Amino acid sequence: MSVFDIQNYLKERKSLIDRALDRYLRESKKHSQTLYRAMHYGVFSGGKRLRPILTLAAGELFGGKHKLLLPFACALELIHTYSIIHDDLPALDNDDLRRGELANHKIFGEGIALLAGDALLTEAFHLMSRPQVVQVLRPKLVLEVLHEMAHAAGIGGMVGGQAVDLETEGQDVNIATVEYIHVRKTGALILTAARVGARIGGATPKDLRRINRYGEFLGLAFQIADDILDAKGHGGGRERQGEGRDGERKKATYPSVVGLAASKARLQELLQHCLKEIELFGKDADPLRGIARTVVERAL
Amino acid sequence: MSVFDIQNYLKERKSLIDRALDRYLRESKKHSQTLYRAMHYGVFSGGKRLRPILTLAAGELFGGKHKLLLPFACALELIHTYSIIHDDLPALDNDDLRRGELANHKIFGEGIALLAGDALLTEAFHLMSRPQVVQVLRPKLVLEVLHEMAHAAGIGGMVGGQAVDLETEGQDVNIATVEYIHVRKTGALILTAARVGARIGGATPKDLRRINRYGEFLGLAFQIADDILDAKGHGGGRERQGEGRDGERKKATYPSVVGLAASKARLQELLQHCLKEIELFGKDADPLRGIARTVVERAL
Repeated sequence: MSVFDIQNYLKERKSLIDRALDRYLRESKKHSQTLYRAMHYGVFSGGKRLRPILTLAAGELFGGKHKLLLPFACALELIHTYSIIHDDLPALDNDDLRRGELANHKIFGEGIALLAGDALLTEAFHLMSRPQVVQVLRPKLVLEVLHEMAHAAGIGGMVGGQAVDLETEGQDVNIATVEYIHVRKTGALILTAARVGARIGGATPKDLRRINRYGEFLGLAFQIADDILDAKGHGGGRERQGEGRDGERKKATYPSVVGLAASKARLQELLQHCLKEIELFGKDADPLRGIARTVVERAL
Repeated sequence: MSVFDIQNYLKERKSLIDRALDRYLRESKKHSQTLYRAMHYGVFSGGKRLRPILTLAAGELFGGKHKLLLPFACALELIHTYSIIHDDLPALDNDDLRRGELANHKIFGEGIALLAGDALLTEAFHLMSRPQVVQVLRPKLVLEVLHEMAHAAGIGGMVGGQAVDLETEGQDVNIATVEYIHVRKTGALILTAARVGARIGGATPKDLRRINRYGEFLGLAFQIADDILDAKGHGGGRERQGEGRDGERKKATYPSVVGLAASKARLQELLQHCLKEIELFGKDADPLRGIARTVVERAL
């Protein structure tokens, strides 16, 4: 029996996504060179493509074709990139570095960085609604999926989580508040990445519910793993350079509330939940298994 | 023959739109109180609702029902509001006042203002793709309209125009560049407001082309009128307080390149083009006529 090679899988899918992202972005080049360069720099500055790979993996499980999955996978990465660019601005986290490179606003200035984030978010919806997508998928399904994406990215998801995170900065918070923030700020987009793949791939309602639970556990696990890396000063937290930044800021993190050991135990538990939900899919779910293990094990 | 009362029409439609906006925003209240308040403050701080009224007026001309038009009309206003909030941030125009009131970031802080803008943009797409819309309109039409909105708001429209505006700040530009910026920064969303109304209302391709030209002329006229008010220091420019702000910044404006008299002449000419395009619709187009006159005459 051959062992599934998750590293190779991640590498191949990342390459597929990078090519598609580059192709989509190029269409913007004619409008504003500076803005295009800022968008391109943001999208191609070392992201691991977790969200879009998750969409492909969940889609493939149900026989979804890459051609149908890629616009949605890439839209998720555009949304993720915009959130990073805005997050690094002085108005929010004021980070000069991201993944060891200069943040967008340090290269292009705050104004262009702000606009590049705005353009990437808008472009995500432009991409999902393009004629090429509508021709090959049921328009009603496209709208439902787009609606889920908007929910996950908006006040009921990512942006809402960021706002509560900002509001509670410097306060003593309990673990329920930490989970509330994590589930929205990071979890919503990861959950949606898995759900959207499954939906485009044609999952039955029952299978979608399994993928939904897998995605919920994975989303929370991802943020706890990030918190742990941050606490250890490994620069993993939100992929920042620097040491234990969220700790310095007194942001709500898992280890700061329940400690490192309990955080790791929770992470192990979430991984087991993830694996259990997709157990019955057998070998076909190896990519989803590998993704969950990769997310968790970097922090253990 | 009774004379059409445009002031009353604008007042009634504004009231309809305000109620719908309030209703949609309320759905966000449960997620983050602070963010909701910042979004609500932005949306209800004195906007005249030109864009959504234009959508209603263009839709009504072809028999479109308010219930079908309002989600798109309101989405346009959410997009317009987000652009104003981000525009006022220190990263861009650094304005403390907007329409005589404190700018969003002066009340809620830069971080929440940034996120409120992000949330409003996302909410626009959430609103257009909601199940209530998909149930009453052909999903394919909804996607096409949503795609137009994303184009008008993104790098090919508003944000692209803002970027070029920012890049050329302080430079000597010719009238072609000024028009390029105006058509995108302001024109695209106004054009799309008219187009979307007509499409939801069920305009024929031929009628849509007329509305398209009306919208193009109106969009450019709107920005030239704004430039003229700005140059006169009437605080009309982008609805700002203050005197001649865009002039102080050496931003590309119509009067600064061709002078006040030529700008006014161009405005008159654009109004005549607008009126000519909708002439054959007779009395039914009185609201579109009244809107064009209102936009232009404030600057003459």
